[in-house]
Amino acid sequence: MSRIAVMGSGAWGTAIAISLARRGGHQIALWSFEKDVAATMRERRENAGFLPGFQLPESVSIFDDPASALASADIIVSVTPSQFVRSSYAMFAPHLHPGQLLVSATKGIEDESGLRMTQVIDEVLRKQGLELPCGVLSGPSFAQEVAAGAPTAITIASADLALASRVQREFSSGSLRLYTNDDVVGVELGGSIKNVIAIAAGIVAGLGLGYNSTAALITRGIAEMTRLAVACGGRRETLAGLSGVGDLILTCTGSLSRNRTVGMGLGQGKPMAEILAGLGGHVAEGIRTTSAALGLAWRHGVEMPIAEQMKAILMDGKSPQRAIEELMLRPGRDE
Amino acid sequence: MSRIAVMGSGAWGTAIAISLARRGGHQIALWSFEKDVAATMRERRENAGFLPGFQLPESVSIFDDPASALASADIIVSVTPSQFVRSSYAMFAPHLHPGQLLVSATKGIEDESGLRMTQVIDEVLRKQGLELPCGVLSGPSFAQEVAAGAPTAITIASADLALASRVQREFSSGSLRLYTNDDVVGVELGGSIKNVIAIAAGIVAGLGLGYNSTAALITRGIAEMTRLAVACGGRRETLAGLSGVGDLILTCTGSLSRNRTVGMGLGQGKPMAEILAGLGGHVAEGIRTTSAALGLAWRHGVEMPIAEQMKAILMDGKSPQRAIEELMLRPGRDE
Repeated sequence: MSRIAVMGSGAWGTAIAISLARRGGHQIALWSFEKDVAATMRERRENAGFLPGFQLPESVSIFDDPASALASADIIVSVTPSQFVRSSYAMFAPHLHPGQLLVSATKGIEDESGLRMTQVIDEVLRKQGLELPCGVLSGPSFAQEVAAGAPTAITIASADLALASRVQREFSSGSLRLYTNDDVVGVELGGSIKNVIAIAAGIVAGLGLGYNSTAALITRGIAEMTRLAVACGGRRETLAGLSGVGDLILTCTGSLSRNRTVGMGLGQGKPMAEILAGLGGHVAEGIRTTSAALGLAWRHGVEMPIAEQMKAILMDGKSPQRAIEELMLRPGRDE
Repeated sequence: MSRIAVMGSGAWGTAIAISLARRGGHQIALWSFEKDVAATMRERRENAGFLPGFQLPESVSIFDDPASALASADIIVSVTPSQFVRSSYAMFAPHLHPGQLLVSATKGIEDESGLRMTQVIDEVLRKQGLELPCGVLSGPSFAQEVAAGAPTAITIASADLALASRVQREFSSGSLRLYTNDDVVGVELGGSIKNVIAIAAGIVAGLGLGYNSTAALITRGIAEMTRLAVACGGRRETLAGLSGVGDLILTCTGSLSRNRTVGMGLGQGKPMAEILAGLGGHVAEGIRTTSAALGLAWRHGVEMPIAEQMKAILMDGKSPQRAIEELMLRPGRDE
């Protein structure tokens, strides 16, 4: 039996807690940054705001205080939005201690620094004189389906194979299967950049351009993701796996993707404020990741035409139609 | 101006003819094996059976006689079902002559021989003392969308770069873009095997397993396709491109795919006869390709677990649910 703390009660954090509880054998703490969300979850045994319709099993305890959630945990899964990972770990650090094992389930790249989430976590903890092993959980997984127990396969990445194997063993269940991978860079970048491509795929759908165009765009997206990840030290095979192409396909074609939904709205000509309001508090990581990825690409001398067009749409108000036209008409005589 | 003969009047052949006519500058012959289909097309200027709703432009002439269609053609695009490619080229051969350029747009592998379509064509022509260059047209392209002029990107593959460049130049239009590739093996195998994976993706959908499962299955499908193509001499990058992953994504997620439709029916427990009747005369190439691909895999010592389960379903009446469960529970600790 392990004591597992899930830090962050968005849709994905809540789904992970439910999945771990269903698997059995663990004591689970689910921490919410928002006191009222925690209170409602404790009372109703449901995360009505972020993952409605799923009961929180009894083995899930709700906390709004990080100290209580973290103090006795063996494994800590963090699932906060990428922009809050740095401040969250600064808050968590005083309650962490050697022997604990971290798992980052946040997808994104820090904007100014270009750091991956495990790099941010490591940096924050080192400043506090702490050094804890940190794996990455990523892959094609809509939270609702994981909560419902639909068959799902994801990746647990760590350079430390013992860590990866332990998380694999303790998280895997009849419906959720974890595959180990030692390529942390590839897994983190794949999971992050796919959100940028998903916005573009949403735009193609919103413009009504059809399946052929979407497939062409995703194919280019795979090339673009892979180029950056390999330049940063990731492996090509990782990008061709669950946490790369697999997650990209899910996000670009499934109707449950928030990043794709943002793109759809842009393609249909909706104003950004209206689109974001429609997400009901959920975060679309791809918006922030777009400029962060371009920063990384610039440092590594990598071309990312799709991300560039997305930035032009998101930051400069470029017309989505013109951006997609330019992508499609981009010279490229051979593959 | 070129004279282009499109041999085969299924949905894809008809869409190619319409796309070439829309591009302009060519004289197009569309040949139908079935005399009544040709007669109706000539009369109504529409292929009501295979691609309803699209008018055949004036520059498209309809033929039911291969001699007239082929005699004066500069470029010949063949789009017959894979099982008829051998007999069709035996019929075409007497009317072909040096200087003509062939393009195969049929996706599939010959069952007993394991030959790719360009190999079958070459073998048939050599027996008649003919040797004509033959390229391959493949990639993510639902016929309806190409006919409608939706932006589409596909591959023209040939070891002969002059051939590929000429077809690229003469077929590309504002909405249809061709990319050249010299990896004929990779392009032909990618385009064929994706139909097998599409049946499996359809089954996952038919069983109601959700997006996460579909993404996991497609990811495995990419690995399986790539393994076989590389063992046969294709390039990994080709399988990661338009005619590999791109076409796979289209076929596995788009609702217009016949192979996916067959899988959906199987997943829903429909009998095969009913499913095939529902295709209304259209061919689902993946059914035949399944055993052909396994034959090739056996010869090259490659594992194809998805294709094996599809064969068990199609040939041995194995329960689709059990087949998918076995695929999902297949041991595979790391990616």
